[in-house]
Amino acid sequence: MPGFSDLLHQRVLQAGTAVLVGLDPRFDFLPDEIVAAAASSPHQIATAFERFCCEIIDIVAPLVPAVKPQVAFFEQLGPSGMSALHSVMTYARQKNLIVIADGKRGDIGTTAAAYAEGWLAGEDPFAAPFPAHALTVNAYLGADTLEPFVELALRRNAGIYVLVRTSNPGAGAFQDLSDSDRSVFQAVADTVQGLNAKNWPDQAWGGVGAVVGATWPTELRELRARMPNTPLLIPGYGSQGGTAADVAAAFDPEGLGAVVNSSRAINFAFRDPKYANQFAPGDWRSAIEAATRDMISDLKSHSAGPR
Amino acid sequence: MPGFSDLLHQRVLQAGTAVLVGLDPRFDFLPDEIVAAAASSPHQIATAFERFCCEIIDIVAPLVPAVKPQVAFFEQLGPSGMSALHSVMTYARQKNLIVIADGKRGDIGTTAAAYAEGWLAGEDPFAAPFPAHALTVNAYLGADTLEPFVELALRRNAGIYVLVRTSNPGAGAFQDLSDSDRSVFQAVADTVQGLNAKNWPDQAWGGVGAVVGATWPTELRELRARMPNTPLLIPGYGSQGGTAADVAAAFDPEGLGAVVNSSRAINFAFRDPKYANQFAPGDWRSAIEAATRDMISDLKSHSAGPR
Repeated sequence: MPGFSDLLHQRVLQAGTAVLVGLDPRFDFLPDEIVAAAASSPHQIATAFERFCCEIIDIVAPLVPAVKPQVAFFEQLGPSGMSALHSVMTYARQKNLIVIADGKRGDIGTTAAAYAEGWLAGEDPFAAPFPAHALTVNAYLGADTLEPFVELALRRNAGIYVLVRTSNPGAGAFQDLSDSDRSVFQAVADTVQGLNAKNWPDQAWGGVGAVVGATWPTELRELRARMPNTPLLIPGYGSQGGTAADVAAAFDPEGLGAVVNSSRAINFAFRDPKYANQFAPGDWRSAIEAATRDMISDLKSHSAGPR
Repeated sequence: MPGFSDLLHQRVLQAGTAVLVGLDPRFDFLPDEIVAAAASSPHQIATAFERFCCEIIDIVAPLVPAVKPQVAFFEQLGPSGMSALHSVMTYARQKNLIVIADGKRGDIGTTAAAYAEGWLAGEDPFAAPFPAHALTVNAYLGADTLEPFVELALRRNAGIYVLVRTSNPGAGAFQDLSDSDRSVFQAVADTVQGLNAKNWPDQAWGGVGAVVGATWPTELRELRARMPNTPLLIPGYGSQGGTAADVAAAFDPEGLGAVVNSSRAINFAFRDPKYANQFAPGDWRSAIEAATRDMISDLKSHSAGPR
């Protein structure tokens, strides 16, 4: 039965790109017309976030296979923000986009199961209240805490992406600690690959992905080899410093096995002089579209993704 | 200026116990009368969770200093659940309880700042949309990712509890990996203690706490010594196997420096034959109160908490 990775790869091939557009609304950066329509109550800001993200979805849905809403920016607004997030995720699914919720959740036993139930809708958008195809997960609490997520991912053809090597400058503080054998991030990687080998034995790509930052090209190459059946989610391209050449190593010869995320550089392209100067004042939609197309071209020119 | 730990300790001394009551609503376990009043839509279940948790708060507010709502059980219900969580947290604050939100959040840079803004209300319940005094935080992403939480905790006299050694059986999978010098959980502990020494230099107890499971008594003793200015949040007492004797080592000679959590054993005491047989059928409130009082006595008899 086709799982999350099959669905994702099908859309990647349809779109002809592995670009993943992050949805990171931040009130100070929104287009003026959207800010002007909102006042400053959490509920009104949530409405502005919802409108902005749905407009981004309209722009990118014909171009890319997937979006990644950052849960924190909605959660910051309380219950209104979570309602807005639900609407944005539902809208993205209506537009046939894969939705990867970036929540970095993780807990033990029945609590982990509750997070899985909350987010892992998989194929049926009504199967979970926050209708994601996949969720990012933090495994610090232990390999056993991934089991409830894996179980539900199997049942619903959903996916998770486990944090392995994150893109931030201080990622190594704990992730690089190493016994004679391997580092923490390598141990997490081995757990992830093991879950795929065990639970999706006949699939090229399992339902347990890994988050590996584009900002660590050496580790990225090593981890690609170490986790041959593990789909990667790669943050850190663009504003954080990762290049298309860096991320090319994440893909197999067919150009599958990874999606590359950009959030800020696409969401707020209209604040970047490079794009602001190309379009009429206030035409923020064209700037977002141009930035998305530029990223697609940049990845293609380095064979980072489908040919 | 008194910080989160001062506030918490003041309440611990007032209550005369360091018992922390977890709020872990689970639909299958709720009292029959609350289930009967709900159907099965997420919104109706959320209403049942809210009612149940607010009734627990009524029972425990005169007895204990603090409650710990488990975010996952509310998030599982989607936006309705998050609204219910907001109401439960607000109600707990009206009842003068310290509220520690168990969300195990963690992310990088501005995203971490968004989680902090979402949860760290600190002294002013209107300062954040989810009005917690403190939030549990996962530091896998690196020491740098704690900074935005610390910054807001300082400004609002709020607190965080960083996961150091969790209570689950598989906690050691990644937390115990060790170079020649120290294990991962010791490295996280050193970071936590360092943040307190740096940011709360004149305080006996800093604003950055640590989660250390009662299920690991040897590590608990070692970590208490390693983090002398760090308040501890101790899960794993009771149903997970930690005893009052095990957790006594977490407290200083005054009986301060830690809170000991119990969730299931208190929330669903009416399903435990030990309590069910003591009270009239349907009198779930008395069972919850008796279980809370028993835990308070158990800790007191082992000097685990204020004398």
